[in-house]
Amino acid sequence: MDKNELVNELARRRGFLWPAFELYGGAAGFYDYGPLGAPLKRRIEDIWRQYFVIAEGFAEIEAPTIGVEGIYQASGHLSGFSDPLTSCKECKEIYRADHLIKHIIEVPDALSNQEIYRCIEDNEIGCPECGGKLSEVYEFNLMFKTMIGPGNKMTGYLRPETAQGMFINFPRLLRYFRDCLPFAAVQIGKSFRNEISPRQGVIRLREFTQAEAEIFIDPRDKSHPRFSEVEGIRMKFYSQAAQEKGEEEEMTFGEAVEKGIVAHQALAYYVARTYQFLLAVGVSPERLRFRQHKADEMAHYAADCWDAEVFLDRLGWIEIVGVADRTDYDLKAHAKVSGVNLSVFVHYDQPIKRSKLVVKPDFKALGPRFKAKAKAVGEALRALSAEELGSGKAVAVVVNGESLEIDPSLFKFETVEEEIRGEEIVPHVIEPSFGIDRIIYTILDHSFYEDAVDGEARAVLRFKPTVAPIEVAVLPLMDRLELTGPAQAILSELRGRGLRVDYDTSGSIGRRYRRNDEIGTPFEVTVDYETLELGTVTIRDRDSMQQVKVARGQVADRLTALLSGSLKFQDAGDPVAPTAKKDQND
Amino acid sequence: MDKNELVNELARRRGFLWPAFELYGGAAGFYDYGPLGAPLKRRIEDIWRQYFVIAEGFAEIEAPTIGVEGIYQASGHLSGFSDPLTSCKECKEIYRADHLIKHIIEVPDALSNQEIYRCIEDNEIGCPECGGKLSEVYEFNLMFKTMIGPGNKMTGYLRPETAQGMFINFPRLLRYFRDCLPFAAVQIGKSFRNEISPRQGVIRLREFTQAEAEIFIDPRDKSHPRFSEVEGIRMKFYSQAAQEKGEEEEMTFGEAVEKGIVAHQALAYYVARTYQFLLAVGVSPERLRFRQHKADEMAHYAADCWDAEVFLDRLGWIEIVGVADRTDYDLKAHAKVSGVNLSVFVHYDQPIKRSKLVVKPDFKALGPRFKAKAKAVGEALRALSAEELGSGKAVAVVVNGESLEIDPSLFKFETVEEEIRGEEIVPHVIEPSFGIDRIIYTILDHSFYEDAVDGEARAVLRFKPTVAPIEVAVLPLMDRLELTGPAQAILSELRGRGLRVDYDTSGSIGRRYRRNDEIGTPFEVTVDYETLELGTVTIRDRDSMQQVKVARGQVADRLTALLSGSLKFQDAGDPVAPTAKKDQND
Repeated sequence: MDKNELVNELARRRGFLWPAFELYGGAAGFYDYGPLGAPLKRRIEDIWRQYFVIAEGFAEIEAPTIGVEGIYQASGHLSGFSDPLTSCKECKEIYRADHLIKHIIEVPDALSNQEIYRCIEDNEIGCPECGGKLSEVYEFNLMFKTMIGPGNKMTGYLRPETAQGMFINFPRLLRYFRDCLPFAAVQIGKSFRNEISPRQGVIRLREFTQAEAEIFIDPRDKSHPRFSEVEGIRMKFYSQAAQEKGEEEEMTFGEAVEKGIVAHQALAYYVARTYQFLLAVGVSPERLRFRQHKADEMAHYAADCWDAEVFLDRLGWIEIVGVADRTDYDLKAHAKVSGVNLSVFVHYDQPIKRSKLVVKPDFKALGPRFKAKAKAVGEALRALSAEELGSGKAVAVVVNGESLEIDPSLFKFETVEEEIRGEEIVPHVIEPSFGIDRIIYTILDHSFYEDAVDGEARAVLRFKPTVAPIEVAVLPLMDRLELTGPAQAILSELRGRGLRVDYDTSGSIGRRYRRNDEIGTPFEVTVDYETLELGTVTIRDRDSMQQVKVARGQVADRLTALLSGSLKFQDAGDPVAPTAKKDQND
Repeated sequence: MDKNELVNELARRRGFLWPAFELYGGAAGFYDYGPLGAPLKRRIEDIWRQYFVIAEGFAEIEAPTIGVEGIYQASGHLSGFSDPLTSCKECKEIYRADHLIKHIIEVPDALSNQEIYRCIEDNEIGCPECGGKLSEVYEFNLMFKTMIGPGNKMTGYLRPETAQGMFINFPRLLRYFRDCLPFAAVQIGKSFRNEISPRQGVIRLREFTQAEAEIFIDPRDKSHPRFSEVEGIRMKFYSQAAQEKGEEEEMTFGEAVEKGIVAHQALAYYVARTYQFLLAVGVSPERLRFRQHKADEMAHYAADCWDAEVFLDRLGWIEIVGVADRTDYDLKAHAKVSGVNLSVFVHYDQPIKRSKLVVKPDFKALGPRFKAKAKAVGEALRALSAEELGSGKAVAVVVNGESLEIDPSLFKFETVEEEIRGEEIVPHVIEPSFGIDRIIYTILDHSFYEDAVDGEARAVLRFKPTVAPIEVAVLPLMDRLELTGPAQAILSELRGRGLRVDYDTSGSIGRRYRRNDEIGTPFEVTVDYETLELGTVTIRDRDSMQQVKVARGQVADRLTALLSGSLKFQDAGDPVAPTAKKDQND
């Protein structure tokens, strides 16, 4: 088995990821997070929340996953979120039409459906299954569709991304943030894409989890007040220019903005936060890079876009996060379709002074002279410039095609200073969009390693303690009441503190260590006969396999400190001499 | 406005709950959790997780919300999860048929669709909108339906409950828990019911959040090892008998089990944990009761079922949690439809010894004598009892209708002791099922109160600090740099600790206190000129409106301790004399 297979086998066997609905034959593109996968996912989401909600003061919201048609009409998903298909006329099998001509045309995305079909015909491509003739190419929308309520009156779609929930709540969010820019809203939740033929495990799912932030900023100022906190961070940038050379460039975020490699501070700041988050949850910095979208790959409205890409065994470089400056595209699209103004009145720091011409026709005199035309004459006068009005002579205006001479006594005018306090603007949007399932798979892949202990292979998931689904395993040396009693008491105490703790009495202690190494448990507490005699327990460290002795009463505090990173393992207790080590099958 | 209206208005205005898709005309039965609602929800879910995952050692999993047909065929949702409808033949409006005859028949649930229709006809009930004639009554399935993949080959349903995700993963869960009972799995997530006419805000939603646990236990022993931890808790039980009297009975859980009011310890334990959880998140014990299902309301397979009901203004008593002993119904249903054995081999504490008759026909002798019939003769001998075989005389057997005499020399037999180590059993399931949206609305309702400060009304959400969406508000006395600088530093420090902190400079300090009281912020930190002069800040307590002075360097520790409940407010710092109080509009 290669590493990809080893990781997938481990994930399935130990309860991280299960193919869904196995009892009923399964369905491609659906996975269960099992008893270890779900807590791993929750903890990663919680760290994301610390980075992108709590620390930034962003607003987390939770909108429904079902949405009404108008949303996806505005977002473009109704018309543009589709794949070109062709069906075999014999066996009825369905294929991605563009995939069938990939060996002929390198970038089939640029072709129309008719052009793809012509290519299929010209090259006499038949059904890959039975050789039968293929149908014309048609579009298949990737949104799951359903009906809301009885009577087929209202169509609903399962959201293809969480982002729209933030856009359509823009008016309420703006009020929540007391009408001031910048502000941001995020969602963590399920999205759905009815893929034709999902593959690669959780890399391409029909139901998946996203974490997205929509950061609404003033387009006139794309600096970021906290950029100084990240500008010194060094990272590998795979810019458009670097891609031409085929080599990432390492530099600081400050340099990247200064050289114009990243468009502006606001975008660079969130790329940097993304980088920090990915390292915090356990993505390996050696297998991580940020790649800029090439000009032909970027959406036409986007100002700049960077993908976090990770290197995965067998799969190569895979996108796990995108951070884009989407400009005002989304808000303008929703304003147009909904008919609701989605702009913000932004106050200038200093009101701007502007001179303004005020014309005051003397309607008391104009009325009797021009009768029904008086109002039109007044309007015509207001349309004139100060020069035209101030000639001192009669002024010529045209009303309903008729030329009229207006004596200067019939109007007054003056130039006044006007104060302009601000203007209506449509915010720009910075969008960091995270694929949580891919990040989880990456962490499994990047954490996995094998070494040997006493000549036996040891598989380890080197999870950060902050994401490990089991933080501590409590292991009585033997399954006897005098040991399981104290062990259960430690278990309850640790769980009472909110730690995720497992308890295991089955098999040799060495085997139980192996079992916990394999699922990434950072620490084990062993209760043995010294616990009864001397009142001490052993804490074992997964990575070094070292052990320390700790007084029973201190074990909860020490573990809490070890897990938070505030205590180093070598300082956690009295080291156990290697001769006394129990890290073997006994 | 009555309290119900006040709470709903506050929830909408301040960003707890928004009717979804307002930009596109909305859709009944869908709500958004806004910037205050979503964190309130997350924190309640996290406390649930502490109670029903971490403390109990249960496994949290996350299955897809879309499911395949077989699941709902087995669960009964495909055939039975529907409402009876009738449509107006004139205006096409659709109605719940049973609701139209509620004034005539008290419990229309018991009627068939034909009977409901006859009742409509007999009573000449017309369309409530236009008076038109109503159609025959038909069933409308409440599951949202969709198609998986292209070509309409595979039907999918949005899950109507999270429970099925645990049942269909029973084989993998059993392996995860090393083949031992009891064990349990939980899910917190979205469920969907395509209600005909959703109403009452978040009380009846089309898309809602459940937290469900499926606890698989050995049916032969429904005691609970930790029952002693809850047996002394007193609570109001509204049992079947109590409902006849119309009055709840207060007693301990120990008494309730002893008197047979709650079926057994295992059920009572989870009712007690539910009670503890509900109080922990802020449900008022005075407006909470546990009501037992009446005999005619309980599912036919259920052994016992208790609902947590809360009293809400205007709505009355509403179910928010159900805790049921569902016996082996669900696993047997899935075993039958899927054809997969869903039983557990349980080992007896002591193997059972049983005597067993072993018959050994002497085929070497039987063969030549009975030829092709020899095998059948052997089988016939094995079907006989020890008495028949041990008569010492020839034994009569019948093979293919032919009577044969078998001499005792042609077989041997002996009685051996057999050891039976255990048996295959189908576990019973205890299911606590929580409606998270209803719990959130309850907490809003039960936390809300109004008092008066300096003659002005003050609206307060008296949230527990552990659920408050904003834990601390940092308020510089005035929006001036010498105050906002230190205030921002405190904000960053508190957010760095993972606290949910808001920052507000707009309006008078009294107005900002009011604004925070209204959203339930437990504590405010005020930075004023004493901060600059003496290095102190003020912490204000929402409920008492008292203030204490704390040294700047201690504010984060004190707040953390106040929020966790380990420090009382009066011990948090030097009390500020009432004359110096700033709790007014200044």
